[in-house]
Amino acid sequence: MPEFLNKDFMLDSPTAVELYHDYAEKMPIIDYHCHIDPADIYSNRKFENIAEIWLGGDHYKWRLMRACGVEEDRITGAAADSEKFEAYADTLPRAPGNPVYLWSHLELKRYFGCDKTLNPGTAAEIWDFCNDKLARDEGLRVRGIIERSNVETIVTTDDPADSLEWHIKLASDETLRTRVLPGWRPTNLLDIENAGFASYISKLGSVSHIHIEDFSSLKDTLLRRMQYFRAHGCRSCDHGLRSIAYAPASDERANEIFTKRLRGATLTCEEADQLRYAILAYCAKEYARLGWVMQLHLGAIRNVNSVMYERLGPDTGFDSAGSGDGLQGLAQFLDALNKEGSLPKTIIFSIDPADNLAVNSLAGCFSREGAKGRVQQGAAWWFNDTYTGIKQQITAYAEAGALGNFTGMLTDSRCFLSYARHEYFRRILCNVLGDWVRRGFYPDDMGSLGALVQDICYNNVKNFFSI
Amino acid sequence: MPEFLNKDFMLDSPTAVELYHDYAEKMPIIDYHCHIDPADIYSNRKFENIAEIWLGGDHYKWRLMRACGVEEDRITGAAADSEKFEAYADTLPRAPGNPVYLWSHLELKRYFGCDKTLNPGTAAEIWDFCNDKLARDEGLRVRGIIERSNVETIVTTDDPADSLEWHIKLASDETLRTRVLPGWRPTNLLDIENAGFASYISKLGSVSHIHIEDFSSLKDTLLRRMQYFRAHGCRSCDHGLRSIAYAPASDERANEIFTKRLRGATLTCEEADQLRYAILAYCAKEYARLGWVMQLHLGAIRNVNSVMYERLGPDTGFDSAGSGDGLQGLAQFLDALNKEGSLPKTIIFSIDPADNLAVNSLAGCFSREGAKGRVQQGAAWWFNDTYTGIKQQITAYAEAGALGNFTGMLTDSRCFLSYARHEYFRRILCNVLGDWVRRGFYPDDMGSLGALVQDICYNNVKNFFSI
Amino acid sequence: MPEFLNKDFMLDSPTAVELYHDYAEKMPIIDYHCHIDPADIYSNRKFENIAEIWLGGDHYKWRLMRACGVEEDRITGAAADSEKFEAYADTLPRAPGNPVYLWSHLELKRYFGCDKTLNPGTAAEIWDFCNDKLARDEGLRVRGIIERSNVETIVTTDDPADSLEWHIKLASDETLRTRVLPGWRPTNLLDIENAGFASYISKLGSVSHIHIEDFSSLKDTLLRRMQYFRAHGCRSCDHGLRSIAYAPASDERANEIFTKRLRGATLTCEEADQLRYAILAYCAKEYARLGWVMQLHLGAIRNVNSVMYERLGPDTGFDSAGSGDGLQGLAQFLDALNKEGSLPKTIIFSIDPADNLAVNSLAGCFSREGAKGRVQQGAAWWFNDTYTGIKQQITAYAEAGALGNFTGMLTDSRCFLSYARHEYFRRILCNVLGDWVRRGFYPDDMGSLGALVQDICYNNVKNFFSI
Repeated sequence: MPEFLNKDFMLDSPTAVELYHDYAEKMPIIDYHCHIDPADIYSNRKFENIAEIWLGGDHYKWRLMRACGVEEDRITGAAADSEKFEAYADTLPRAPGNPVYLWSHLELKRYFGCDKTLNPGTAAEIWDFCNDKLARDEGLRVRGIIERSNVETIVTTDDPADSLEWHIKLASDETLRTRVLPGWRPTNLLDIENAGFASYISKLGSVSHIHIEDFSSLKDTLLRRMQYFRAHGCRSCDHGLRSIAYAPASDERANEIFTKRLRGATLTCEEADQLRYAILAYCAKEYARLGWVMQLHLGAIRNVNSVMYERLGPDTGFDSAGSGDGLQGLAQFLDALNKEGSLPKTIIFSIDPADNLAVNSLAGCFSREGAKGRVQQGAAWWFNDTYTGIKQQITAYAEAGALGNFTGMLTDSRCFLSYARHEYFRRILCNVLGDWVRRGFYPDDMGSLGALVQDICYNNVKNFFSI
Repeated sequence: MPEFLNKDFMLDSPTAVELYHDYAEKMPIIDYHCHIDPADIYSNRKFENIAEIWLGGDHYKWRLMRACGVEEDRITGAAADSEKFEAYADTLPRAPGNPVYLWSHLELKRYFGCDKTLNPGTAAEIWDFCNDKLARDEGLRVRGIIERSNVETIVTTDDPADSLEWHIKLASDETLRTRVLPGWRPTNLLDIENAGFASYISKLGSVSHIHIEDFSSLKDTLLRRMQYFRAHGCRSCDHGLRSIAYAPASDERANEIFTKRLRGATLTCEEADQLRYAILAYCAKEYARLGWVMQLHLGAIRNVNSVMYERLGPDTGFDSAGSGDGLQGLAQFLDALNKEGSLPKTIIFSIDPADNLAVNSLAGCFSREGAKGRVQQGAAWWFNDTYTGIKQQITAYAEAGALGNFTGMLTDSRCFLSYARHEYFRRILCNVLGDWVRRGFYPDDMGSLGALVQDICYNNVKNFFSI
Repeated sequence: MPEFLNKDFMLDSPTAVELYHDYAEKMPIIDYHCHIDPADIYSNRKFENIAEIWLGGDHYKWRLMRACGVEEDRITGAAADSEKFEAYADTLPRAPGNPVYLWSHLELKRYFGCDKTLNPGTAAEIWDFCNDKLARDEGLRVRGIIERSNVETIVTTDDPADSLEWHIKLASDETLRTRVLPGWRPTNLLDIENAGFASYISKLGSVSHIHIEDFSSLKDTLLRRMQYFRAHGCRSCDHGLRSIAYAPASDERANEIFTKRLRGATLTCEEADQLRYAILAYCAKEYARLGWVMQLHLGAIRNVNSVMYERLGPDTGFDSAGSGDGLQGLAQFLDALNKEGSLPKTIIFSIDPADNLAVNSLAGCFSREGAKGRVQQGAAWWFNDTYTGIKQQITAYAEAGALGNFTGMLTDSRCFLSYARHEYFRRILCNVLGDWVRRGFYPDDMGSLGALVQDICYNNVKNFFSI
């Protein structure tokens, strides 16, 4: 019986072992989409204890604890960190097969050098061991973690109204070898129905010294903000949407709806769809002009538990995967942009794994001469960032297209230890390829396969994002 | 080449073998949802022949025979039992991979001690062999089957208007070691569009000595019936619905629609949705108060062949799996109940396996302090009760939550031999876990895994249902 | 490490090896649905070079090249064939896991006797080697390819207005041992919204010497054309539809809409659905009367890239898989036909693999006495014609029905070398069965399994189509 997380775990064939250790493992990481706070990097944050780094913001772990009946006080509440850690140690053994089980132990092993399995019996020992390391090892401060993870570039997710203060500071900090770039994430901009929409627009205007009073000045402001982001290294944007409704409207119509909304009126569904589409379509054209990569994250149902939303706000573990809507709207959106010659490089993520084929086959309809994988599916996202989800996404990409173009993995995480997810992904990738060789589907040609693995782990994302 | 149904079939690793034989196999069964007739238990029904027990009510087998062109006369018709058995023997070899193939042989082996493979060449021999056993072995009467299957508790599905006569008799029968509890299944109540709705309501009223003339008296009656069910041991309910439309309405509005329907009027879709939602929401609140488990079975399309529906009625093998509807309505229903503090413990079954992720991630949004898996996905249901379906459901549950909370298997069957399905499920469960150990995803910790297996096979359902 | 495409590739168990080599491999092919041009068979077309035969019409390969950024000129444009071949050789190594990778090499091996792997380094050598063979080996002309592929019958896809000129010539050509039959494919007829609809109707009338001026004369014409097709050996039809809307209308209503459309008016969605349904329902009844097999290909989104549609037209690689719509309309369509006793033998293909269960369980509701698999799911279609897609479809069919009734594989191809796809399918089929035996799910009974394999490879389709 192999040891848990042994050197070759997940690698079921000699080809997989060779591909992982000789090609994948050594490649630097370009983490092109994450939710970490650049201020933590600048300040080289030090963590007091393992609970702080693990449980401080990670709603994957919070959900798991809640599912096991842990009181909110010991999850996001006022309980001591040691109590939270204990609660997590009680929870984890109940979750075999959950990626969090594997990630947690991989993080213990890779960052703390701890081979123990976390459970109620080992909790105290691991707590002391890790906290001691955190206190003494400078390599477990944020910059050390990033460095030992071999991270070449980090792209954060930032609101258009953000000053990018920390990115500016980081850019001029010559002691940091990792590049930290901002990513344009206009969630508040597209959350048109939100009660705070008008005040968000006002804030957006004020950072640009523009009084946004109509659709035209909104567009001017957005353009100015994009240029500002670009000046500070931004090369990509991201949209999280339930779905895309194809609802083109004239600028006049968009202006009518926008000003109506600014005055505080409630929009009809159709109006909201039209305004959202108008903003999205405007932005997309500018993305194309700027050469940015457009990421689309589709299908999540947000904040389904309104009691907990009231209590804890968004992004606290109360979102759900929905089912796809057939992607008709997405298809029309891509086509409309393409017709105008303004379809950016695009990465599509759908939360519904049943969309894998639809997304890949749709993406394959929007190729461009001279570009590899101009529109493509992104790595298995969020609830799909599991063994099954990753394997299925890689297989679906390969079976419907040219896997060699795949831009590969990202952490999408709020935790600095999550670079271990790149290892997790790379092992699965190598295993899928090794399995094809083992079964006679692909030649045992390590040169070709090794290069392909290195492309997927690193080169493709570097080229795609021009990073 | 291993023998068919050998001791370790489906168990592909040493861990799986050990988990199954040392932990899973020995656990008692709590069959928390089935369609068997309690009268058959009370009378300790004796079966004349193998066709009667196998083909008497099992529409899984009927569908298979129909797919192979067998005449209805030899399925549900007037043909002799021996002819029906022959037709089944002709059919079965054409169905490798179908769970019915495996179940049938497992039942032959476990209950009759027959190792033969059923096919036209062996049919006569097996017919004689089994019928002889049925005639002579008291252990093949209903109570014997239940006993040797180590069934601790059975929960049937019963109409709210049911007198529970047989449950009452069974409760006072001290010779029966297995507990048989009623389950509240208000299918007729929610089948609002059905021509027989008004007469059903009238019947429901008469068993409660209430004249149901408005929504208020309907609620009074339902409450009284729930209390009656509870007094006779009911701890759970079940709803089979195409989908849940979130259509809240005031009591006045619900009353308007209900009385309109009682007068025989046809409802608009919107009205039907509102009335159905009002009844469902009322019931759910009471379930929460009673501490009942609410089961939701979603997505089946019933009676799609109207010719055969006319001829044979419902539940005769003419239903189909539909696709999910995105579960938006379900999400809103759960949230609305939760807001009012009246969300019962809930088990969600969707007929669409593509909903696995959506159901599990949605369920994970409605945890409760102190409860393990308060809202959770149920075992692979109906058409998904297959090797693939079970494996996928277990994996999806594990990857999106804490598998240790899973309430596990149920037969959902009309046949007393179907306890073999628990063996089938338990083998797959142990194999999935064994595979994770074999591949280095989970430590080789038999104590922890064995306890988890025993929880899923038995302890969790016992605690969840307070049985 | 086994050799790429070795003798037993994809065959992971002794049972699989034996089933494939002793049973599957030898069976003749009945290719019941393809898009090849019968004129090429009649003329025994000779190919100038490997690019012509491979890249002349195969949009699977075109998509792959486009995804890798190849210029359209070197795909469908004016570039020399040798340049196109080079571009393909550059592309292919980037696509491990894609069926096109495997098919291409299988075709090189089986038809050209070339064991090389295609990549930029081998391109020139393979180009010369294959072209030399094409020039000298008569067995690489169309008839030779068909013959060495052991093809007993080919069914093409033909427009109702087609003269069937080539089929007539082929029927009287006694030198051809393979039967080539027409297949009724009324795509233009059902493309009601198309600008060319009225002129298509006029063309359809003129080949029948009928002036189609109303719905009644349309039906007369269709009937006459069906009889014409039947007289020339047609036994099946095929419909490619986004989805089926159940929209029954009286003949009067259908006539109203039809004549409105003939006059050039734009139809409402509801009108289009009604007219399409009326034509479809009329045809289906006649199919039943004629004993034809009705194929339904559902769910594809066609021509999503309107720029490329303008440039290259349909069927050039710009279609996408959509998601299913729940199949409610299909269920009602089948039920309506069945009620009138006019449901033809039907094979259902959905582009959405998430529909596998729904399609199989729906099909199982429409069995008929004396018929095996009267309504059934077809082989994994188009984007699903992959290792994963085929394995999942076979498994879904088996788990929900009687696999022994399955009508098996078809190429659906525009290329004469695609008979290799039958080998691909047969290997996966044998491997799935072998896996069940290896794991103890099915007895090691080669007689029964071998017969079942031969049924699926050949006998079933022969009986189902009465070919």
